[in-house]
Amino acid sequence: MRLSQLFTKTLRELPKDEKSINAQLLIRGGFIRKLMAGVYTFLPLGWQVHKKIEEIIREEMNKIGGQEIFMPTLNPRKAWEITNRWKYPEMFKLKSRQNKDYSLGWTHEEIVVPLAKEFLRTHRDLPFYVYQIQNKFRDELRVKSGLLRGVEFMMKDLYSFHRDEKDLDNYYDKVKKAYFKIFKRCGLEKITYLCLASGGTFSQYSHEFQTITPFGEDEIYLCQKCKLAINREIIKREKNKCSQCGNKNLVVKKSIEVGNIFKLMDRFSRPFDLTFINKEGKKKTVLMGCYGIGLGRLMGAIVETSNDEKGIIWPAEVSPYQIHLIQIENNIKIKKFSEKLYQDLQKANIEVLYDDRNNKTAGEKFADADLVGIPYRLVVSERTSIKNCIEIKKRNENIIKLAKIKSIIQQINS
Amino acid sequence: MRLSQLFTKTLRELPKDEKSINAQLLIRGGFIRKLMAGVYTFLPLGWQVHKKIEEIIREEMNKIGGQEIFMPTLNPRKAWEITNRWKYPEMFKLKSRQNKDYSLGWTHEEIVVPLAKEFLRTHRDLPFYVYQIQNKFRDELRVKSGLLRGVEFMMKDLYSFHRDEKDLDNYYDKVKKAYFKIFKRCGLEKITYLCLASGGTFSQYSHEFQTITPFGEDEIYLCQKCKLAINREIIKREKNKCSQCGNKNLVVKKSIEVGNIFKLMDRFSRPFDLTFINKEGKKKTVLMGCYGIGLGRLMGAIVETSNDEKGIIWPAEVSPYQIHLIQIENNIKIKKFSEKLYQDLQKANIEVLYDDRNNKTAGEKFADADLVGIPYRLVVSERTSIKNCIEIKKRNENIIKLAKIKSIIQQINS
Repeated sequence: MRLSQLFTKTLRELPKDEKSINAQLLIRGGFIRKLMAGVYTFLPLGWQVHKKIEEIIREEMNKIGGQEIFMPTLNPRKAWEITNRWKYPEMFKLKSRQNKDYSLGWTHEEIVVPLAKEFLRTHRDLPFYVYQIQNKFRDELRVKSGLLRGVEFMMKDLYSFHRDEKDLDNYYDKVKKAYFKIFKRCGLEKITYLCLASGGTFSQYSHEFQTITPFGEDEIYLCQKCKLAINREIIKREKNKCSQCGNKNLVVKKSIEVGNIFKLMDRFSRPFDLTFINKEGKKKTVLMGCYGIGLGRLMGAIVETSNDEKGIIWPAEVSPYQIHLIQIENNIKIKKFSEKLYQDLQKANIEVLYDDRNNKTAGEKFADADLVGIPYRLVVSERTSIKNCIEIKKRNENIIKLAKIKSIIQQINS
Repeated sequence: MRLSQLFTKTLRELPKDEKSINAQLLIRGGFIRKLMAGVYTFLPLGWQVHKKIEEIIREEMNKIGGQEIFMPTLNPRKAWEITNRWKYPEMFKLKSRQNKDYSLGWTHEEIVVPLAKEFLRTHRDLPFYVYQIQNKFRDELRVKSGLLRGVEFMMKDLYSFHRDEKDLDNYYDKVKKAYFKIFKRCGLEKITYLCLASGGTFSQYSHEFQTITPFGEDEIYLCQKCKLAINREIIKREKNKCSQCGNKNLVVKKSIEVGNIFKLMDRFSRPFDLTFINKEGKKKTVLMGCYGIGLGRLMGAIVETSNDEKGIIWPAEVSPYQIHLIQIENNIKIKKFSEKLYQDLQKANIEVLYDDRNNKTAGEKFADADLVGIPYRLVVSERTSIKNCIEIKKRNENIIKLAKIKSIIQQINS
């Protein structure tokens, strides 16, 4: 992508109505724009990041047998009355011209369970795992944290269906591992903890994945021995000690919930009578798990935890481009050299954001590169092109090196 | 994908509440399920097709300089009042708990124009082209054609911004060509016509892309000389003759509108005062075009026009998988042979749907393969595996051939 053609621009000033770091940096860098409270447009750079996160999640879900579907946003009232959740205050409701009642989906148990019922007959049909990546809606009263708490937000929701609790437990552990792989690929591995949370009426615990950051909305109690976190609700119940080892020296940290997993047991299969015939010919109720990740929130959490005073520092796998190529002199020779480099890098399957703008100073271009936060910055200038070299600098380091194009391609693709 | 693990199943019976061919075949084949009138869930096979169509459209939009963004579904009332479209009867409206008025987006001029205004300053910023692929909502009173007319449906909407009419005309022609490429890749090339439609108050014509099929909701007047179609509104205005050559021998055909393109001129840029400073330093209003394709409708049109009494016949590029592999005997030798073939094909980057089910007869498996409609069917049996061969049959031909795996891989990848 050529910056001369990108229709968005970076901003020098802080957006006045945004207090969170993620919204400030993402708006200044030209990744998102606020339409109204809790509702954002994703611009080309931001949508590029969002799609990378989407693809990471899709890959890891497919690896654990997830089958991707797409359920409707518009939900019928009847389904939500069956589970007694039509009254849920955060759920948007609307009427059609023919006076039909709809809600906007914020989770999809009420749709996926009747869907599973259409196909499920015997124990041989179990287990199976179904997920979607879809826009969700919540009528939030307080929205102040940019992408961390949205009224409209993209979510991955996975639902698993099992014969018995052992099989559910087994898959639940698989999802835990898949989630840590996702957070690792998003650069959040070292600061993300498994966190005990309430399991509702059916399970002792559910689990959250909490990423530590000073501006998080949540508070967790961290057991350094077990590397386990405990949320506020559970820590009260367990009288301020680690649920696993009894340790009372817990460290309190602010954090962002980047994912959650929940054993639903028969909470939703029972009201819809989702059953199967077991090996002994008996009718049994299916047990379920559900597993969520908010894509926008994950993107916000990455920005909150990976930045400096100059801008964002994207982890490699979620960066909108792999290389930010800058041409700092506008003479024909340098232009030609840069153009060729741009083409060669693309031929080597490297994604390049190419700052080919004629009306910007070198200083402005460097500032934009730091703000946008792509892992590698390449600078083409008269001085270095004579040696057939390019300046290369990592976003998270201060060392500038000279390199030939071949070794750059090797480094990026390694 | 192994059919033994796919959570959906095909249906023998016709769904009672569906009259259209596309809904009947897509439901029977396990591609979609109806949640309520005009609202469908996409199942794994259907979502696979949908993603293929999405990727084709994305590629062709990127080739003509389209920059992908993602705008919100929730739209503020104010934006729609500025263009005097808040009263639009097909638009869903809802209120938040804090009594804010939202609508659900069915098109996005009201969002994209103020967005463009944030970045646009001078003629040097023009032209640019912005698109999204997004769920849309329309409060339709009559929905009876499966995916052809939805209450909720995925759409690609592209918006172009120009200095003058010449530049708009130029890009408008580019989009026309890109659209025909998309329809060609979707197998609709030979039956899809450019069709003159009303241009509103600002342009003489807009254009639709109409695919001919006996069960289409539209009616077009086809000039065989010009290979041009004219819609009902225009043909009345032009007194039953071809707008281009004056030919009065027009053929009337039923059709489905699979895309439309429209010169908006300043219809939306004027109310939002979207202007730029031209080369002479004067303030000018931006001219715009908009260009839509409904993804679900396109999928429905493919099924309507590409099927036989046994089921769907997917064009290669949009097929959920490239090969439908069937193992018709359950002995260990054949199982081993099929498993190895399944792995080898996947290693060669071929997408395979593998019917490894033990509890189905060969006849049932063949019937499912014909219903699901993947271009190539491979059958592994004792008789042929002795010769280290596989039976290969194209979905749209009746000839069964014997082939070695190498030549199959060559044929698919060519």
